[in-house]
Amino acid sequence: MSRFALAWLLALLAATAAAEETAPKPRTAADVLAASTPQDWRTLDPENTVYLELASGRVVIELAPAFAPKHVANIRALARENFFDGLAIVRSQDNFVVQWGDPEEDPEKKRVPRKAQRTLPAEFTRPAEGLSFVSLPDPDTYAPEVGFVNGFPAARDSKSGTAWLAHCYGMVGAGRDEPADSGGGTELYVVTGHAPRQLDRNITLLGRVVHGIELLSILPRGNGPLGFYEKPEQRVPILRVRVAADVPAAERTPLELLRTDTRTFADLVEARRNRRDTWYKVPAGRIELCNVLLPARKPPS
Amino acid sequence: MSRFALAWLLALLAATAAAEETAPKPRTAADVLAASTPQDWRTLDPENTVYLELASGRVVIELAPAFAPKHVANIRALARENFFDGLAIVRSQDNFVVQWGDPEEDPEKKRVPRKAQRTLPAEFTRPAEGLSFVSLPDPDTYAPEVGFVNGFPAARDSKSGTAWLAHCYGMVGAGRDEPADSGGGTELYVVTGHAPRQLDRNITLLGRVVHGIELLSILPRGNGPLGFYEKPEQRVPILRVRVAADVPAAERTPLELLRTDTRTFADLVEARRNRRDTWYKVPAGRIELCNVLLPARKPPS
Repeated sequence: MSRFALAWLLALLAATAAAEETAPKPRTAADVLAASTPQDWRTLDPENTVYLELASGRVVIELAPAFAPKHVANIRALARENFFDGLAIVRSQDNFVVQWGDPEEDPEKKRVPRKAQRTLPAEFTRPAEGLSFVSLPDPDTYAPEVGFVNGFPAARDSKSGTAWLAHCYGMVGAGRDEPADSGGGTELYVVTGHAPRQLDRNITLLGRVVHGIELLSILPRGNGPLGFYEKPEQRVPILRVRVAADVPAAERTPLELLRTDTRTFADLVEARRNRRDTWYKVPAGRIELCNVLLPARKPPS
Repeated sequence: MSRFALAWLLALLAATAAAEETAPKPRTAADVLAASTPQDWRTLDPENTVYLELASGRVVIELAPAFAPKHVANIRALARENFFDGLAIVRSQDNFVVQWGDPEEDPEKKRVPRKAQRTLPAEFTRPAEGLSFVSLPDPDTYAPEVGFVNGFPAARDSKSGTAWLAHCYGMVGAGRDEPADSGGGTELYVVTGHAPRQLDRNITLLGRVVHGIELLSILPRGNGPLGFYEKPEQRVPILRVRVAADVPAAERTPLELLRTDTRTFADLVEARRNRRDTWYKVPAGRIELCNVLLPARKPPS
């Protein structure tokens, strides 16, 4: 986990320790996390984990095969043929997204996947059936129902019987041109601003950054239209993109994520809906999907 | 306006021009903006505008005296006694806030305002009466009613008869300690991540960054708890904070903001609720408060 996130978790734990010296009181998020058990946490499946390696460090992305199986398989295939290596981050639009791919503007000269696909059928939604969906109780502006599926923020519509991933901070999607089926994963973007939920069901989301997003969110904004970098030297080179399973175990990033299908997670959501920290004067009594904390930690040794 | 925002607006206008070559179609946000009249735009009141000057450039903040009159008066007073000059940005927490003030940790040694106030009574809410409130039609997770007051995102509750500013991206507030009345404006923060709406009614919002937020949002995240910088050299020095009225007219940042109490703004909101850009396959039919575009532009010469 990032040094910041780790420091934050340590601060939470310290705050919890301090709180224990006083009289019993309603549980804060720190209390809930401090009381979590090893079973509340999960490790990442290395086959569903991708490392984006930059000179500044590693960004860890968890893939979401339950929602975008074709795109996830293609990202693996692209990584395994070293498609992204040597390409670049080409866009950083303030309060919106960071995007990477081939900076080459001439379509004739753009890198072509060898075995992987360049484009795929859209995976904007999927049947809601078969998903273990943990609902949030509060109203959402964009969807009739929102919640979490295996750690991913998602939405569901009982009328259409469909479910889809939601564009919260850190979500990763496959850029596309105007045709719905023109994406495929050769260009990827990460949400680095306020959740652009209008993109939901309009583009294929396929994963989430679970570590190192600050390596992307601090990138200088591009001065071109839509935040594209205007000068080649402004682009950020991609050293490598690898499936974690292909990286020697000792070189993988040790990381545990709080499971979202547990009582502990439900308690955490409740603690954040009604903040018990004494700093808060008026607990919201509500929580919006993209404000829910999805804790990650370095595994306890 | 920032080069990026200007480029973006130009791109929108170019897209509109291109669109005009085809058959008539529903209006996009670009169409609406292109058809705006000079009366749709307003200039900033220099007495309600503050310039935060960094080595990297100028951040322009519009103050909100309708919601936080005491804090706004105090920010003016602090700026006029050069309180902030030489202090620093001390915190950047990913997906949350950037904050500035006196980095001195010893309370005895912290800079003390000469004439301005160090603390003020909280201005978390105000009576809804007397405000021209432009409502949004869609449900909000956190408040019974949301919309805009003079260009600021806000919320309203008819039961309590109160209104308050909302923690959208770019909003500026007065940091405080645990007591509600412990803030006053000597420490200020700007929202640089997904809207932390749980802070609404818990802390005094007093303005919004209307230009140059990318100078703050790209700052490296702090490694300490809550994103505070751990090393003094990581802090970003504040050169000066000035009320625009105190800056020679020729040195002010020329800027116009789209009025939010106009038909043009209503049309813009509608165009963004139901995107007509051909890229979109499923218009959301909804828009969340903090996703509403609040256009700024360099005044036409």
